[in-house]
Amino acid sequence: MDAEQQDPLPDGSLLAAIDLGSNSFHLIIAKTEHGEMRPVEVLAEKVQLGAGLIDDRLTQEAIDRGLDCLSRFAQLLGSVEPQRIRVVGTNALRQAENRLDFTLPAREILGTRVDVIYGREEARLVYLGVAHTLADDANSRLVIDIGGGSTEFIIGQRFEPQKLESLQIGCVSFSSDCFANGVISAGNYQRAYNRARLETSQIRYRYGAEHWAECVGSSGTLNAIESIVVVNGWSETGITRKALVKLEKKLLKFGHFDEIKLNGLNESRRNVIVAGVAITSALFDILGIEQMRTSKGALREGVIYDLMGRLSHEDVRERTVNALVQRYAADEPTAAIVERRCATFFSATRGSWELENEDWELLHWAARTHEIGMAISHKHFNRHTAYLLRNADLPGFSQEEQEQLAILTEGLRGKITPELLVGLPKSTRGRLRYLLTIIRLAVCFKHVETLEQLPEFGVQAEDDVLSLGFPEDWLEAHPLTHSELMNQQEYLGRIGIELNVS
Amino acid sequence: MDAEQQDPLPDGSLLAAIDLGSNSFHLIIAKTEHGEMRPVEVLAEKVQLGAGLIDDRLTQEAIDRGLDCLSRFAQLLGSVEPQRIRVVGTNALRQAENRLDFTLPAREILGTRVDVIYGREEARLVYLGVAHTLADDANSRLVIDIGGGSTEFIIGQRFEPQKLESLQIGCVSFSSDCFANGVISAGNYQRAYNRARLETSQIRYRYGAEHWAECVGSSGTLNAIESIVVVNGWSETGITRKALVKLEKKLLKFGHFDEIKLNGLNESRRNVIVAGVAITSALFDILGIEQMRTSKGALREGVIYDLMGRLSHEDVRERTVNALVQRYAADEPTAAIVERRCATFFSATRGSWELENEDWELLHWAARTHEIGMAISHKHFNRHTAYLLRNADLPGFSQEEQEQLAILTEGLRGKITPELLVGLPKSTRGRLRYLLTIIRLAVCFKHVETLEQLPEFGVQAEDDVLSLGFPEDWLEAHPLTHSELMNQQEYLGRIGIELNVS
Repeated sequence: MDAEQQDPLPDGSLLAAIDLGSNSFHLIIAKTEHGEMRPVEVLAEKVQLGAGLIDDRLTQEAIDRGLDCLSRFAQLLGSVEPQRIRVVGTNALRQAENRLDFTLPAREILGTRVDVIYGREEARLVYLGVAHTLADDANSRLVIDIGGGSTEFIIGQRFEPQKLESLQIGCVSFSSDCFANGVISAGNYQRAYNRARLETSQIRYRYGAEHWAECVGSSGTLNAIESIVVVNGWSETGITRKALVKLEKKLLKFGHFDEIKLNGLNESRRNVIVAGVAITSALFDILGIEQMRTSKGALREGVIYDLMGRLSHEDVRERTVNALVQRYAADEPTAAIVERRCATFFSATRGSWELENEDWELLHWAARTHEIGMAISHKHFNRHTAYLLRNADLPGFSQEEQEQLAILTEGLRGKITPELLVGLPKSTRGRLRYLLTIIRLAVCFKHVETLEQLPEFGVQAEDDVLSLGFPEDWLEAHPLTHSELMNQQEYLGRIGIELNVS
Repeated sequence: MDAEQQDPLPDGSLLAAIDLGSNSFHLIIAKTEHGEMRPVEVLAEKVQLGAGLIDDRLTQEAIDRGLDCLSRFAQLLGSVEPQRIRVVGTNALRQAENRLDFTLPAREILGTRVDVIYGREEARLVYLGVAHTLADDANSRLVIDIGGGSTEFIIGQRFEPQKLESLQIGCVSFSSDCFANGVISAGNYQRAYNRARLETSQIRYRYGAEHWAECVGSSGTLNAIESIVVVNGWSETGITRKALVKLEKKLLKFGHFDEIKLNGLNESRRNVIVAGVAITSALFDILGIEQMRTSKGALREGVIYDLMGRLSHEDVRERTVNALVQRYAADEPTAAIVERRCATFFSATRGSWELENEDWELLHWAARTHEIGMAISHKHFNRHTAYLLRNADLPGFSQEEQEQLAILTEGLRGKITPELLVGLPKSTRGRLRYLLTIIRLAVCFKHVETLEQLPEFGVQAEDDVLSLGFPEDWLEAHPLTHSELMNQQEYLGRIGIELNVS
């Protein structure tokens, strides 16, 4: 079974992306045109979610600021079909332990779920956004995006990122950590510079100048720096080492963020520009950058292009899963059988259990990858699979998707521990119980098929009761399957699913 | 630096292996002859350690039985050099949470450490022992070893095992679990048979008859069954399905283990023979075995052959590490630099810290594999490396070695959590603190070298104090390394190592 066939995306379709950044929230609504996109609406608000992150928790004020902003964005989203909207959260939400306090109401406001993405997934999407703004030549590029809480580094060619990295360097976090109360001093500046240098030194041997032909900056910080140095005549185009030195000197003459006055600097950037320059300067020194051009392409455009791919059957997540299956040499015929069994149970239960296409996607990926942990060890292979799905860099997947795949693959055999579903929001927990039931039964029957055809058996779901009806004598003739089903009855009971077998 | 050069093993060398099985302990002392070995002394005692395993803890009686037996074995070991003795523990010790209560005094008695090995490592060694007893033809073989607590399955050709599995099926555990008080009944027999069948069904598609040309049984149980069926004329040679049926019928006529009388059955096997036959019968049915020959080769012989390899520079552990580095595409030049740095610090400290060749081996393997976790994710790669080293099937390594490698690779960067060394015996903890210090410093300096030669610096160790002396101005000229060393000072302090830098 495939997910319900989607129409390939017709020209002129509207798509929307929202980027919940640590410094600003961005909304873009775009129209597809011959495989590219043309922005129709662009909005940005400086929410500074990252500044409201204290001891890894978002303050209620920051949450309210963010939700207010989304209420305004939501007014523009009416014209876009919900499955053509994607909302991604980055560093501030990655860090926030109470992120559900924000993402659950945000989902209500926007009518679509919020995907918190890993740093390297963010880097991949940034690259996608930037690559579409550049000439399609074969040069290797280093793309850098200095955000409010994290900085992404990508080396790639054309539309293909080759190396991705995300470091904890950001213009919002460095402003508050290194420039207490907005005071500018040589010491504070040096502190910010050194910290960026120390962080970046981790990646200098993989991202240094010997690995690329040109360097491209994305993000508000780098675009702002370029506009200052060009307006002031310190550089003709792009950011150069020399121009940066001039800018540094100029900034160090001010004593406080509030005093900064520079041609070409937008007032809203005053509070973050000094930290941004210190970071940029450290990156130039450590990575051997002499010159950087900038691009207006960014995360939000990358999300739109990624969404276009998903909607027209070029889902990066499929490629990611294929790569996993290859690297860990998982047995594809077995995975295919489990997927077919999942499809049988999914079709029979989706109505009563109100399952959706995205639930099928999860089952599909879980079935395909469920044996990858065997490459580590057969013993407890389900735990190893879950470890890999939870921790690996999986391009295209959000943190939540990875977590849910980990839960499905860990829980598909053996005893179900009560801890498995703890920590999920209640609505997700309900759905995952159903998906776990489906995949556990699918695994139960995976070995029956290679011996003989499965019997025509009945499947009926109603609320939390699932009834399986077998032809007469079939269970007696298959005592192993029978005993496995008896075990399932007990285990599923522990997550509140009643399994009837007759 | 290599470990100190060992003489290749001269002909006539004495080697010893002790197998601490769940049913019996075995000692073998053997002499090398042209790459093969000839047993000089062979001892076995039915300690039944597995029967003393209650709620995953060994009773004091079982521990005493085992240690008494080892005191007797120890009398024969005087003629063998300690580095030519290897002691391995299997299922009962794998299960026992209090295994240190046995292995630490055992080490004192025997003068050499006890390696508790994983099931699949046991399988690999069994295969090695069996393969040396068979004709060197190219047939694919299934080798089965039914032990007291676990059963090993190996498919291999010549001396190469290709698939290894270890299941929780054993003649001691099944005897007590399925035949309460030694009562024989059709119901009890069926219970043991079904349980073996259910366990084995997990591997039927990888170990079934279509995968091999001949089946060879090892272990006391299978040798005993063969001797019974041959002595009674039910089979001409080996164990056949028909002969098993006859034996089953015969056994079911007895009401209790104590009543069993059969030509060819050694009295000491009375308590485990019925469970052994039920298991064998299930294996025949599930895996499609028609005929099984037996071999006297077993774990202990495998340990001897493995030891011969280690002592003459064909250490399987090196091959295992090479395979890991390949699979996870770790960067070998970086690993080589870290290993060279380790060697510098190891040479300078081994005297004061009383480090031995096996400590060097650990550092060597840890350095080589320390980046494999990057294949999962760069973020927290040290934790991923540790996960792989702790959980993967690593032929040649004992559980303790894997655990220590995991600790070294997890702890080589970032903060040291106090949990890292918890759970190790005190003597090991002391050593690992030193090894952690060495590898952390090695990692600190890994990036210095690619820029320039390291300076000639002094290293001095005394008790828990390590002093590094640098040429004048070197630290000032390398502020990053300096700041990393300051961090190390703090972190190493937490594990009681004082680092002086001048």
